[in-house]
Amino acid sequence: MNIMRKPADAEVIEGATALLARFVTNLDLDDVDDFTLSRARTHLFDTVGACVTGAVQQVTIACKAAMDELLPGGDIPVPGQKGRYDVLTAAFLGGTAGHGLELDDGFRPAGAHPGVAIVPTILSAGYHYDVDGKALLRAMIAGYEVMGRIGAAMHPRQRQRGFHNTPIAGVFGAVAAVAVYKDFDEETLRSAFGLAASMASGINTHRTGGDAKRMHPGLAAKNGILAANLSEKGFEGLDTALEDTYGFLATFAGKDATAPDWTNIDILEEGGHIKSDYVIGDCYIKPHACCRHLHPMLDALIDIVTAEDLSPEQVEKVDVGIYEVGVVHGEIGWDNFTTSQMSIPFTAATGLHKRSVQLAHFTPDARSDAALTADCAKVNVYLDKALDAEYPAKRPTRVEITTKDGRKIQRLVEEPLGSARNPVPDDAMIEKYMGLTAPVIGEQKAKSVLEQLQKIEEVSDVRGLVELMAL
Amino acid sequence: MNIMRKPADAEVIEGATALLARFVTNLDLDDVDDFTLSRARTHLFDTVGACVTGAVQQVTIACKAAMDELLPGGDIPVPGQKGRYDVLTAAFLGGTAGHGLELDDGFRPAGAHPGVAIVPTILSAGYHYDVDGKALLRAMIAGYEVMGRIGAAMHPRQRQRGFHNTPIAGVFGAVAAVAVYKDFDEETLRSAFGLAASMASGINTHRTGGDAKRMHPGLAAKNGILAANLSEKGFEGLDTALEDTYGFLATFAGKDATAPDWTNIDILEEGGHIKSDYVIGDCYIKPHACCRHLHPMLDALIDIVTAEDLSPEQVEKVDVGIYEVGVVHGEIGWDNFTTSQMSIPFTAATGLHKRSVQLAHFTPDARSDAALTADCAKVNVYLDKALDAEYPAKRPTRVEITTKDGRKIQRLVEEPLGSARNPVPDDAMIEKYMGLTAPVIGEQKAKSVLEQLQKIEEVSDVRGLVELMAL
Repeated sequence: MNIMRKPADAEVIEGATALLARFVTNLDLDDVDDFTLSRARTHLFDTVGACVTGAVQQVTIACKAAMDELLPGGDIPVPGQKGRYDVLTAAFLGGTAGHGLELDDGFRPAGAHPGVAIVPTILSAGYHYDVDGKALLRAMIAGYEVMGRIGAAMHPRQRQRGFHNTPIAGVFGAVAAVAVYKDFDEETLRSAFGLAASMASGINTHRTGGDAKRMHPGLAAKNGILAANLSEKGFEGLDTALEDTYGFLATFAGKDATAPDWTNIDILEEGGHIKSDYVIGDCYIKPHACCRHLHPMLDALIDIVTAEDLSPEQVEKVDVGIYEVGVVHGEIGWDNFTTSQMSIPFTAATGLHKRSVQLAHFTPDARSDAALTADCAKVNVYLDKALDAEYPAKRPTRVEITTKDGRKIQRLVEEPLGSARNPVPDDAMIEKYMGLTAPVIGEQKAKSVLEQLQKIEEVSDVRGLVELMAL
Repeated sequence: MNIMRKPADAEVIEGATALLARFVTNLDLDDVDDFTLSRARTHLFDTVGACVTGAVQQVTIACKAAMDELLPGGDIPVPGQKGRYDVLTAAFLGGTAGHGLELDDGFRPAGAHPGVAIVPTILSAGYHYDVDGKALLRAMIAGYEVMGRIGAAMHPRQRQRGFHNTPIAGVFGAVAAVAVYKDFDEETLRSAFGLAASMASGINTHRTGGDAKRMHPGLAAKNGILAANLSEKGFEGLDTALEDTYGFLATFAGKDATAPDWTNIDILEEGGHIKSDYVIGDCYIKPHACCRHLHPMLDALIDIVTAEDLSPEQVEKVDVGIYEVGVVHGEIGWDNFTTSQMSIPFTAATGLHKRSVQLAHFTPDARSDAALTADCAKVNVYLDKALDAEYPAKRPTRVEITTKDGRKIQRLVEEPLGSARNPVPDDAMIEKYMGLTAPVIGEQKAKSVLEQLQKIEEVSDVRGLVELMAL
């Protein structure tokens, strides 16, 4: 428990707005343990990787075309992208690029992806305000914390109503990051949260179609920077905007009889603590380029085929026992890019053939590889009620491979690779990062960026670092 | 009933997204009746007046300071303001300036203020895209219609949840206005509505405090322009985003058992029709610079004191019988600008002393005028249950003045001045407009702008017109 989380003599829990504002204004890197700092540096370069590779996707290209027509440009670079933009647009483009390729990190208790909302904010605003690496890391930790705790307080109530936590909680995280850069006092920050409450947007239409989801973290980033600056210049927001009767939490997550008492939640404890006192230390990172629900299955399957050195031809059948939320992914096909990244049969077949699941495995060519897709029929997904009882505390999945020569090999994975309890090894993280960035910005720049991000506290020239990430 | 509203052979009601998209893409000024066109021109200059006078308020000054620090500027003027901005920022500043002084128009079935969301959009985007006055008027009618009908479909369910209709319905109206300028086909417009659904934001924290509400129409304006342009450049939003199970209407106004069937509402009929087939023809305009609930009371009171030529000293007592939603305004004081504009006692005393209620009557000096505020004690507000039964179809209020010489004079006003059924006379509209604009941009410019707005279809140089409105 970090001493900054709660005044020692507090008898009554303060409102969420005040608690979060005090956390941010008091945050000191010297109080943060080495484990958490190390995880933060890894999440930083992992998210940069997602943003750089996302720069070439269609939605990012559409965004750039719109911005070029609407706005005069600016001086701020965006990871993986050509052109220089104003700070709001740079943050919007970075956040939009990073999301939607299913490569970004997440905080399970909030059902949200902090990296793609916070990292584009701290890079763009860090360039604009000419900060150093220490301030950048502090802003990142503050942003993840505020976004993650607000998200966890609402989840899954806001999802049932129709809202996507990444943008609606993310805008508060972006405000917190700017507050660190500008050294806000509590009053200015609380007022900024009050303005952010009226800028929070983003709904679940992506369950049916369209790409709107991909811009969600970009919206959070740019609106958070705007809200913080408006407050600093004297535009006053309500200073209890989170917990107020007409406030953010009640409006987005409900005020019915079963709702929490929003005025009395200990927001810095929402979502709990696994290996760290901080949200950023407890987030997961995706080693496989697909939906997180598919990760334990892939961990188990790849472990079996590697350990037994099985070729796809030797495999007769793959049985996947999984919790209920995961079972629906057994019925998803691989017609397009997004569905293929959600499909248990397609990713399992990919695991059999490639022994890894990378972005390159979802191209149109890959999806029409007859030898691979024929093996999708070998995959049988079923509900395992015992495993379902353990979800969502764990994501347990059992894989059994039956070989043509009659052997049955089984693995149970309860905590997929990538979580704080089961982190991806450093060399695999670097391999993922290099695979995503080198094709876009070149191997040399990618390595140089990585070296600086791995010792971010020592970097004095954040502007130079952000320049290096861009084209 | 306008022929464009529904295909003659339609057996089944199409989804709201398609109905609105078809309305906008088919809208032709030649189909719009003269009464509606005349109301539209009046709402146009009335809203410009609100935006020009709002340019000098504190929130607008804070916005400009933030924008000057964040953005490089641009070439687009804003009514009543110095500086030139990019199109998104110009729309944001215009919308923010126009709202919050209680001078802006409204559409009662939606509980929303269309003018301050739509007019800044059409002026800023009109300048950016160099349109003519005919396109501007068409974009205005389309914007009001889409915003008003979506707002009416939700109202008051979204308000009970905590959302403010002006921004959340307004963003769709701004999209529609840009769609007219850019001649979108239905597909592009539906996709833009899908993106707008994820940009809709703005909650009721202003019931407790803060100024966030004032930026709500500005947010709608800038986000609508952005959503429209993203769609045009190939960023796809869900094309059934309004009525979808995970769509805008269900998310913001609920999908419980008592909710409408969002997939089957005739959205172009929501809110009904009073004197016009179009929302813009049925909006109200505020002759008094205060909350609309106070208008029937002021109409009755000013009528009595003028007809009887009563001085404040001759008045013993003012009894105000009103519907329940209005009664609470009897308990509001006049400590600050906003509360004084919501206060029945203060505005009634102002009516006794000034025989009108203008913005100048709410200054700190005016609020501490001892002779006037002493008369607040003469005002007695009570619930009239018979009148309450008629609200909200009407806003009925009964005023009885008792004079010191023992006379009792009564008036009942059911439809306050300013609605389509009881419009403000032209000369009073012009007096209001000149009173708001001349002190900011000068009498000569104010007159020239008015002349052009009154014959907007004939204006070829919209850029020159927008320049004239600015400093």
